[in-house]
Amino acid sequence: MYKATITVRLKSSVLDPQGSAVKGSLHSLGFAEVENVRIGKTLEVWLDSADAAVAREQVEAMCQQLLANPVIENYEFQLEEGA
Amino acid sequence: MYKATITVRLKSSVLDPQGSAVKGSLHSLGFAEVENVRIGKTLEVWLDSADAAVAREQVEAMCQQLLANPVIENYEFQLEEGA
Repeated sequence: MYKATITVRLKSSVLDPQGSAVKGSLHSLGFAEVENVRIGKTLEVWLDSADAAVAREQVEAMCQQLLANPVIENYEFQLEEGA
Repeated sequence: MYKATITVRLKSSVLDPQGSAVKGSLHSLGFAEVENVRIGKTLEVWLDSADAAVAREQVEAMCQQLLANPVIENYEFQLEEGA
């Protein structure tokens, strides 16, 4: 069993209205030192692949096909065995 | 300037319908080896704090007050300087 921890972030050139809203809320709560907030996703995927190379290839394909939108998002992942 | 990278995850005892939906979609796409999917948030917060100890305290307070729901979510964060 492998566990992939995938982080999907908006590209830095893409506006992040959710991040701006959270920054506004933090300012309202008194956290005036906050300069910027960006929000992304973390996905944990457990998969039962034959070996690490296969698992890596499968996770890469999942990101391309479903988990990230390569037009506006970047992704990266780490793979652990036996998690 | 400090950058905090905060990961907010549902506690393992809490159902994750979004994760279940993504797992279903991955199966539909042919990724039969996927056993489980859990989805969380990644927040990047840039803040202009006096020093690292203050920044750490502020991020902790932000998580408690706004960024995570301690009833159903766990959070962790890493702090980098000058990012």
